[in-house]
Amino acid sequence: MTVEWKGAPVAKALTESLVPRVEALKQDGILPTLAVVRVGEREDDLSYERGLCKRFASAGAEVRVVALPADAPQEELENTVRTLNEDGGVHGILLFSPLPKRYDEERVRKLLSPRKDVDCLTDANAFCVYAGKCGPGLPGFAPCTPQAVVELLDFYGYDLTGKNVTVVGRSAVVGKPLAMLLLQRNATVTVCHTRTRDLPAVCRNADLLVVCAGKAGLIGADCLREGMCVVDVGIHVVDGKLCGDVDAFGASRVPLDACTPVPGGVGAVTTAVLLKHTVQAAERRA
Amino acid sequence: MTVEWKGAPVAKALTESLVPRVEALKQDGILPTLAVVRVGEREDDLSYERGLCKRFASAGAEVRVVALPADAPQEELENTVRTLNEDGGVHGILLFSPLPKRYDEERVRKLLSPRKDVDCLTDANAFCVYAGKCGPGLPGFAPCTPQAVVELLDFYGYDLTGKNVTVVGRSAVVGKPLAMLLLQRNATVTVCHTRTRDLPAVCRNADLLVVCAGKAGLIGADCLREGMCVVDVGIHVVDGKLCGDVDAFGASRVPLDACTPVPGGVGAVTTAVLLKHTVQAAERRA
Repeated sequence: MTVEWKGAPVAKALTESLVPRVEALKQDGILPTLAVVRVGEREDDLSYERGLCKRFASAGAEVRVVALPADAPQEELENTVRTLNEDGGVHGILLFSPLPKRYDEERVRKLLSPRKDVDCLTDANAFCVYAGKCGPGLPGFAPCTPQAVVELLDFYGYDLTGKNVTVVGRSAVVGKPLAMLLLQRNATVTVCHTRTRDLPAVCRNADLLVVCAGKAGLIGADCLREGMCVVDVGIHVVDGKLCGDVDAFGASRVPLDACTPVPGGVGAVTTAVLLKHTVQAAERRA
Repeated sequence: MTVEWKGAPVAKALTESLVPRVEALKQDGILPTLAVVRVGEREDDLSYERGLCKRFASAGAEVRVVALPADAPQEELENTVRTLNEDGGVHGILLFSPLPKRYDEERVRKLLSPRKDVDCLTDANAFCVYAGKCGPGLPGFAPCTPQAVVELLDFYGYDLTGKNVTVVGRSAVVGKPLAMLLLQRNATVTVCHTRTRDLPAVCRNADLLVVCAGKAGLIGADCLREGMCVVDVGIHVVDGKLCGDVDAFGASRVPLDACTPVPGGVGAVTTAVLLKHTVQAAERRA
């Protein structure tokens, strides 16, 4: 029987573990606060924002939404970030990314204070991920999605040390930082991508397969091996249904040890990671 | 027959390819210059310095040695770096590292101008390696040793695209940046380390094995497979003889396609890489 590694219990446990830390900060007069900078009203952004607000509320922390009109000029966006950088009541800043194309996103990112950059949009935090400088007592924040993968594995007691882990995807947002976090946890990490020869063979060779290729149904039964564990980071809408990078039908024919569902897997953990990072940022300022 | 991938022809070809660029800079009144900052007179440093001076002279470029006494205070070292940062006649700065323990090396590194940091001692350049921002037209400089591995593979016409490459070692100086450079070249990269389970099996699985573990003779015949290629970055003195991370006797029993000698392999290429980076730095200023 394949164990289902659901995200909801991970998010719940992580959130509960943060409640006492939120309480302690409040007793010191600090309300951990995440500022969300949104341009326009994309449905994806709004939906994620609702999830965030609910998550933060459940731990007694605050989300402050700064919504700019869809036609806000670059300067207004930049000034918003500058103001939030300086605002002592704001501990984390989340900028919905990618921005609409007419913005110079690079410029905005460079403005963001690394100390408040809880989703790793700055070069300084990317460096920390690369150098193994994220986590308790360390300065950096990893991007939420790869961090959510690690939180999920921790919750389900998966010990990464010495495991052969194959990561499919090398994006700057997920694949690469994830490879760094897994290496930091002493996994033997293989990074695959579009130019990999014989992807199925490289995948089957893994104890743990993490797929973040951004391609619906890329991973079929030929990429899977009995007894392996699979984390699917992908999320796509195909024929009106949500699915991941793993072909669910193919996967159902292979007796895996464990597998994350889509939806309801890694994606359900990211808001809790943002909460964790915001609390860490607030504690550093305390 | 195993082909020997020697470093000397690589260094020679790379140097020759740089001569016209040095000439062009000189015609614009710019003499490409590397400042070498050395504290004390360690034999290793002096020997490397001699090699550097010879390499630069052969291309018509300049090395300026700034030798500080072994008891120079931290402040003097820092002021030296500050002065060289500001000196328009200096395009690259090489700081012999690691510094003696009584120095705060982190502080010195942070002072170094990333634009002159031709051996990747700064966080800014490490970020560039991670983000794939090193090379022609890009701002970053990779560390010389991993870059030397890539130059050697290029010289011998080894196409990395789609190859399974195993890197043994995850140091900040060699293993990690090398993994990033190889990934950038579209190899499928696996990073091994001391916590890897069944290292021989992971090694044998590779088309190309690059060993930078810093442990003499770690890689024996059990880690090798007929027809694979091996690059040995290690260099050690054992019983008065120089050897690498690969056990030479073990390797001699396996019919490899190609293998770098130690000494005379990767190590012979690094001074040419420093020349290349110094010329690049000078061109950016031109």
